[in-house]
Amino acid sequence: MVSRSPAEIGMSLKDVDTPALLIELDAFERNLRRLADAIAPTGVRFRPHAKTHRSPVIALRQMALGAVGVCCQTVGEAETMVLGGVPDVLVSNQVVGSGKLARLAALARQARVRVCADDADNIVAIDKAAASYDVRLDVLVEIDVGNQRCGVAPGRPALELAQQIDAAPALRFAGLQAYHGKSQHIRDFAERRQATKEAVDLTAATVALLKEHGLDCETVGGAGTGTFLSEAESGHYNELQAGSYIFMDADYGRNQKEDGTPFDDFENSLFVYTTVISQAKKGIAIVDAGLKAMSFDSGEPVVADAPEVPYFGPSDEHGRLNMEASNKTFAVGDKVRLIPGHCDPTVNLHDWYIGIRNGRVECIWPVAGRGASA
Amino acid sequence: MVSRSPAEIGMSLKDVDTPALLIELDAFERNLRRLADAIAPTGVRFRPHAKTHRSPVIALRQMALGAVGVCCQTVGEAETMVLGGVPDVLVSNQVVGSGKLARLAALARQARVRVCADDADNIVAIDKAAASYDVRLDVLVEIDVGNQRCGVAPGRPALELAQQIDAAPALRFAGLQAYHGKSQHIRDFAERRQATKEAVDLTAATVALLKEHGLDCETVGGAGTGTFLSEAESGHYNELQAGSYIFMDADYGRNQKEDGTPFDDFENSLFVYTTVISQAKKGIAIVDAGLKAMSFDSGEPVVADAPEVPYFGPSDEHGRLNMEASNKTFAVGDKVRLIPGHCDPTVNLHDWYIGIRNGRVECIWPVAGRGASA
Repeated sequence: MVSRSPAEIGMSLKDVDTPALLIELDAFERNLRRLADAIAPTGVRFRPHAKTHRSPVIALRQMALGAVGVCCQTVGEAETMVLGGVPDVLVSNQVVGSGKLARLAALARQARVRVCADDADNIVAIDKAAASYDVRLDVLVEIDVGNQRCGVAPGRPALELAQQIDAAPALRFAGLQAYHGKSQHIRDFAERRQATKEAVDLTAATVALLKEHGLDCETVGGAGTGTFLSEAESGHYNELQAGSYIFMDADYGRNQKEDGTPFDDFENSLFVYTTVISQAKKGIAIVDAGLKAMSFDSGEPVVADAPEVPYFGPSDEHGRLNMEASNKTFAVGDKVRLIPGHCDPTVNLHDWYIGIRNGRVECIWPVAGRGASA
Repeated sequence: MVSRSPAEIGMSLKDVDTPALLIELDAFERNLRRLADAIAPTGVRFRPHAKTHRSPVIALRQMALGAVGVCCQTVGEAETMVLGGVPDVLVSNQVVGSGKLARLAALARQARVRVCADDADNIVAIDKAAASYDVRLDVLVEIDVGNQRCGVAPGRPALELAQQIDAAPALRFAGLQAYHGKSQHIRDFAERRQATKEAVDLTAATVALLKEHGLDCETVGGAGTGTFLSEAESGHYNELQAGSYIFMDADYGRNQKEDGTPFDDFENSLFVYTTVISQAKKGIAIVDAGLKAMSFDSGEPVVADAPEVPYFGPSDEHGRLNMEASNKTFAVGDKVRLIPGHCDPTVNLHDWYIGIRNGRVECIWPVAGRGASA
C-alpha cells in the first residue's frame, strides 16, 4: 500500500519512472521565500496549510522561514505533523466523534494543538475529551464569511459559542477562524478583493462584538494563496493560512492580477511526470497519467513544456494529448511534465515527492500524511 | 503513508470512523456470483480487471468462482497480484521503459505473465527484457476498436505486429486485446450494443486475417461491466475483462437496460462512509468526505439512503448535502453512506476495505495495490 519510489537520489530526471510527483526545488524554494518576504512587512503571523503537502519535511522548511506552525484539516494530518517534528498545529476544521476527539486531546499532550468549532454540542464533546486527557484545549470559533461550508454566522451566533468555550472548564477561547475558500479562485482581481473585503468586514465586526463582551481574539485566522495580501493588509487578520503557494497549479494560474495578466506571484514547482506509452494513432499521444495520478476536479492538467498541446479524455491509468495544434512530436518512451489542475488532491494520490534540481534527483520525501483523511 | 484502519473487526457500522471505504459483503458476493452465473452458459473465460479493486484478496475470490486470472493495467498492480497469490496475470496495457519491462520479465519467473503491445519498437524492447530474464513472454496485440486510446488499427497493422511478435525469439504471439472502454458508459442499450457490435466486427475480421496468415489468437480479450454479455455471446471473444461489476457505482447506475430502466444487474456494494461535521447553516449539512475520499471524474456521489439529497460543492476534505428537497434531517455526528461516482479511482484513495455484514465489521482488507500506478 506504500508504492515503491519511482526514483533514486542522483538519478537523472529522464530516468525517473512514471507516473511520479516532481518538485522542482529551485522554484519551490523561491515560492517559500516569496511568501515569507511578502508578508514580513505586514507583521502578520503565517501558519501555512499542511493539507496541501501533507509533509512534515515541507512544514519544517516553512517554519524555518518564519511560519509559527501549520494548519491541518484532519486529526490524521495533525498527528503526521506532530510526529514529524512540528510543535504547533491548528486543526482549522470541525473534529466530530469521540474517537477523533480522544486522538486530538491525546495529541495535545505532545504538542500545541488547537481546534475550531461551530456547534454547541461539539464544544461540550471537545471539553469532555480535553478533561479526560487532562489538557486545556484552545478552541477557535469558525465563522462563515461567505464560503458556505462550515462555520456559524458572524456576530451574535459566534459570540454565543465563544462564551460557551470561555466558560468550559477544559477549554480556552482562542479566537476566530474566518477562511473564505471560494474567494481564492475568483478570477478577476477586483471581484476577488471585494469578496475578501466582505469577509474582512464580517470578521472585524465579530471581533469587535466579542471585545465588547470581554472576549479577546488571540488569533484571527484565514486567507489562502489567492487573497492572502488582502487579509494581511486589512489590519483585522493576524494569522494567514495559505497553502498552495508552495506548488501552484493550473487552476491558480487562471487567476488574474490587478492589471489583468495571469497570477504569477508564485511559480509552478509541482509536476506529474508521465511517459508516452502509445502513439498508434496520428495526432494523439497516450500518456500513463490519468485519474489515479492527478485530480481533475479543477480541470485538466497543462503540458508544462508544450502548453499548446491539450491533455484530454483521462481514464484511470491513461491520458490523451492532442498533438494536432503543435509542432512538437512525441515518441513512445518520451517523458512529459504535467502541471496538475489542483495541487492538494493530486499530492494525496502519491507516496513520494521526487525533488529535482538541475535535472537530477536531489531528494525523495515521503508524502507522510497521504491518506490521513480521518 | 499507510493510514490507520478506520475500524476493527466486530465493531458496529455506526462506530466505524470516517471517511471509510465500505464493502457491503452480501451485495458484493451476490455480484460476484451473478457475473459468474451469467457467463457460464457462454463458455467464455473470465479474467476480471484488478484495476477496479487492486486487491489480491478479491482477485482470489473471483478465481474461486471460475475466473482464470486477472487483468492489470500497470506492472505495479501485476506485482501486487502475483505476490498476493494470483498465478496468472495479463497486463492489458502497454508497458514502456526498460525499468518496467525488467520488472515485468522478472515477474514472469514467478507466475504466468502476459502483456499487450501496439508498437514495433516496444516489441523489440519486450523481447530484449524477456531474453535477459530467460523467459518466454506471451504478447497480445492491442487493437483500437473505437476507444481512441492505445491500440493499432484492426486489420493489417495488427497483422504486422503479430508477425513481429511471432518472429521474436523470446516472445510468443498470444492473441488480441480489443477493449472498447467508451462503449461501457453509453446510456442507451441499443446504442451500447451497436458500439459493441462494431468492436466485435473489427475484432472478428482481424482474427480472420491473422488466421489466413497462420496466426491463431489463443486469446481474444475485452469487454467491461456495461457490455460483457454482448462480447460473450458474439462468438468472437473468448476472454472477458469486466471489473466494476463487483462494486457498481453511480455512473454505471445511469446506464439503461433494454427496456429503458436503470441497469441493475449488479448492486451497489461499495460506499464511502462519511460523518456530518457541521450543520451551522439551515438546509446544508457538511460532511467529511470530499476530493480526497472520492473521485469526481464521473460526477458527484449519491446519498445511498436518501437519494433525493444532492451532494454538491466538494472541496478537499468536505462535501455539502442540500437538505432542502428532503424530509430527512441530519445532525452533527450522523453518518451517511455515499455511492461514489466512479469506483476504481475512488478505491485508489483508500488503504482499507471495511467489509460489513448485517451492520457489523466482518473483515478488513488492505487495498494492497493502492498507488501502484507505475
